[in-house]
Amino acid sequence: MRMIKVGVLGAKGKMGAQTCLAVEEAADCELVARLDQGDELDELTKAGAEVVVDFTRPEVVMDNLAWCIEHGINAVVGTTGFDEERLATLRSQLASSPSTGVLIAPNFSIGAVLMMQFAAKAAPYYESVEIVELHHPDKVDAPSGTARRTAELIADARREAGSKPIPDATTTALDGARGADVDGIRVHGVRLRGLIAHQEVLLGDEGETLTIRHDSMARTSFMAGVLLGVRRIGSTPGLTVGLEHFMDLA
Amino acid sequence: MRMIKVGVLGAKGKMGAQTCLAVEEAADCELVARLDQGDELDELTKAGAEVVVDFTRPEVVMDNLAWCIEHGINAVVGTTGFDEERLATLRSQLASSPSTGVLIAPNFSIGAVLMMQFAAKAAPYYESVEIVELHHPDKVDAPSGTARRTAELIADARREAGSKPIPDATTTALDGARGADVDGIRVHGVRLRGLIAHQEVLLGDEGETLTIRHDSMARTSFMAGVLLGVRRIGSTPGLTVGLEHFMDLA
Amino acid sequence: MRMIKVGVLGAKGKMGAQTCLAVEEAADCELVARLDQGDELDELTKAGAEVVVDFTRPEVVMDNLAWCIEHGINAVVGTTGFDEERLATLRSQLASSPSTGVLIAPNFSIGAVLMMQFAAKAAPYYESVEIVELHHPDKVDAPSGTARRTAELIADARREAGSKPIPDATTTALDGARGADVDGIRVHGVRLRGLIAHQEVLLGDEGETLTIRHDSMARTSFMAGVLLGVRRIGSTPGLTVGLEHFMDLA
Amino acid sequence: MRMIKVGVLGAKGKMGAQTCLAVEEAADCELVARLDQGDELDELTKAGAEVVVDFTRPEVVMDNLAWCIEHGINAVVGTTGFDEERLATLRSQLASSPSTGVLIAPNFSIGAVLMMQFAAKAAPYYESVEIVELHHPDKVDAPSGTARRTAELIADARREAGSKPIPDATTTALDGARGADVDGIRVHGVRLRGLIAHQEVLLGDEGETLTIRHDSMARTSFMAGVLLGVRRIGSTPGLTVGLEHFMDLA
Repeated sequence: MRMIKVGVLGAKGKMGAQTCLAVEEAADCELVARLDQGDELDELTKAGAEVVVDFTRPEVVMDNLAWCIEHGINAVVGTTGFDEERLATLRSQLASSPSTGVLIAPNFSIGAVLMMQFAAKAAPYYESVEIVELHHPDKVDAPSGTARRTAELIADARREAGSKPIPDATTTALDGARGADVDGIRVHGVRLRGLIAHQEVLLGDEGETLTIRHDSMARTSFMAGVLLGVRRIGSTPGLTVGLEHFMDLA
Repeated sequence: MRMIKVGVLGAKGKMGAQTCLAVEEAADCELVARLDQGDELDELTKAGAEVVVDFTRPEVVMDNLAWCIEHGINAVVGTTGFDEERLATLRSQLASSPSTGVLIAPNFSIGAVLMMQFAAKAAPYYESVEIVELHHPDKVDAPSGTARRTAELIADARREAGSKPIPDATTTALDGARGADVDGIRVHGVRLRGLIAHQEVLLGDEGETLTIRHDSMARTSFMAGVLLGVRRIGSTPGLTVGLEHFMDLA
Repeated sequence: MRMIKVGVLGAKGKMGAQTCLAVEEAADCELVARLDQGDELDELTKAGAEVVVDFTRPEVVMDNLAWCIEHGINAVVGTTGFDEERLATLRSQLASSPSTGVLIAPNFSIGAVLMMQFAAKAAPYYESVEIVELHHPDKVDAPSGTARRTAELIADARREAGSKPIPDATTTALDGARGADVDGIRVHGVRLRGLIAHQEVLLGDEGETLTIRHDSMARTSFMAGVLLGVRRIGSTPGLTVGLEHFMDLA
Repeated sequence: MRMIKVGVLGAKGKMGAQTCLAVEEAADCELVARLDQGDELDELTKAGAEVVVDFTRPEVVMDNLAWCIEHGINAVVGTTGFDEERLATLRSQLASSPSTGVLIAPNFSIGAVLMMQFAAKAAPYYESVEIVELHHPDKVDAPSGTARRTAELIADARREAGSKPIPDATTTALDGARGADVDGIRVHGVRLRGLIAHQEVLLGDEGETLTIRHDSMARTSFMAGVLLGVRRIGSTPGLTVGLEHFMDLA
């Protein structure tokens, strides 16, 4: 089996360390470099890295990627903080290195990506859609980022399909009883000791309902998504935003 | 088998008609009178009714019950609108007819009663409790009456047990994201076409969660509770408020 | 709005009658003929039917379709009993009428179709998959046809993706405890009073699970699928097997 | 606050070590002795232990308990292997030490105990009951011990209430499709990567269902039950079998 030579940036962080473990355990990958703050990037070329996984920080990730693109090393990026400006910069850098690929993935959970994609595909077929996200009570924000993103994708899909507004006859309600409104979709955030990170998308029409639920119990669950990125980025030049583009959902 | 002779008041209403059907189908009951607006109550005594089921209206139910108590006929009451004053009146009337029983039941759904009782018993053992109620989108109020009642019972149970406040680290939230606060318990109301009436009580502690869910799909589900009342009221003199007192939950 | 002229065959049957209602209520459809046993098919041409919905019986459906294809009327078919031989006959008949379309749909439930499609797409990403189907206790077969079909689609998708066998360390089991084996997928059939027709596909991997659940509460839920067929068949000449081909899932 | 002085036997085992941690963290408990193989039991008396928690092995637990009872030390026991003979022995030993208490608990999960108790209480009110247990795929037995125990408790409750047999019209079934039969109750065992230990009891009647679900994600969830035992055993002389007797469920 041909081994993919992988370098990890941010190797001492929680996600980076997990990635090192996952790469070492993968039968078709070889961990050739684990770098963190203070290390020199040219260790990547010395080690012959073909793919870099970046779990660093918004302040340094753009420099890392510029260097990787310049040296023709593909990159799988879990670091946050990408806006349209940063994406445009990457696209222009990649134009000069046409065989190099960069994946920016806001979410490496394959299950979360499937849930969002399925919910958006199903939404135009249903009169009603709501989201319930459930997390541990130490979480500081509500609703979760995944729930907001899911609501936006659903709202987009419904707008595109010309769906009617979701029915709701509520006239008397206690404050908050009907959840938050995210782009026209109601989102409810449950906080409960014992839970980790869970989400349910409920879709309903006359006489039937469809429920898509994702339960995430451990950070290890992100590694399947990271490895999927590592395996596919070599044959996907250019900029890709979102792991869903590497999944055969079409 | 000894047959219980049953009369129905409000026999032409939705619940009354359903009760007539259920009494006729029950092997141990005999429907001896079906009365509605304009009928004379003394048809009940002529027919030998031992138990009356009242699904009438708040304006007439007190007169109906005064008459039944006076004539020693037990009553099972689904009509709404009972406050402390009305209950006191009934108690004083029943004092003069010590072998007669009256059951006032705000909820005849055995499943809903079990859910509420179990939730209240379990709540002091858990750090967190939240309620999600789910109904069809034509419902005008949120949260549902059952959800409010459940929250109150849970809050009472926790106060009595000296439970600590439920943890919630939320500092940044969209309006409504964390649901309504009913007596310190968070309640979320989902509205979805295809649903009828459903409720989930979620209880959580370190490493485990307990979920109690009730799904009510049809009005027929109340009839088991009405018949339970009919069968037990003959041996339960005095005033009883709540079907739970006829269930062997203790 | 251009109205689609629709005729219904088997209009007195349960599904046919429901279809008549649904067509009448649809803003873009006009019910121009409702035929049942003994009626003449040429009432369809007289009435100008563009689309026929057939909910008849296996013994007569092939004659109905031959007649429709000959007269250039599109058909949406819910009648059962189609094997490869029948499909081949239809394909050859349609070859002579290239602008006519026939949809054979074993399942008109949009939710069931979505569940099956999503489950098959997700299955290769997960180490484990199992199916739990839940129905009323008067059902005579177990597992349900939908559950078997779902298992087959999942097994096909996993074979194609080269997925490994699903792990199961069970060495000591009571007879039946691990469900039925349908093409390598474990399927469990629950029978419970109060339920109608429900199914859950559970997919699991390290640290996460994805659950897709469909709840079907009423026959009316099939009508959205029938109308989808009616609306699309006019622009889909030839033979189509399965409602999923009319849904934008790709 | 008065501190309860606690000794742990089997302190180096998984459950014993966890117990030591939990006792140290509890505001009202003091860990005064942690013993394992080779240690002398009289360290317990020297340290003034009032309650002993025993997570040892079936071969040694009876000697440990004889010694504790003789020295008037209460015991909370999670070690397995207690049959009627052993319980009889303990009862007779306790008769000579009337102020000492011993709790034998086959299951320290408060949630599992609540699920079992609630299921048994609810079962006589429902026509149908089934159990679905869900575990990781490395489990070797099916169904789980908790599922079997739940089925037995449900079957006992239904027998006592004179419930009719559970309806099931199945005439054609794939082998295993309807699960295992445990004392007349159908039990289904799902095995899925990503799951830990979960169980759902489904109860159904005309038009409604009640579902009680327990999700156990971590061994730490047993500690609340162990501490409940430690706190109550001092005021509960004699032999108690089952944590449910220390919970205010009546």
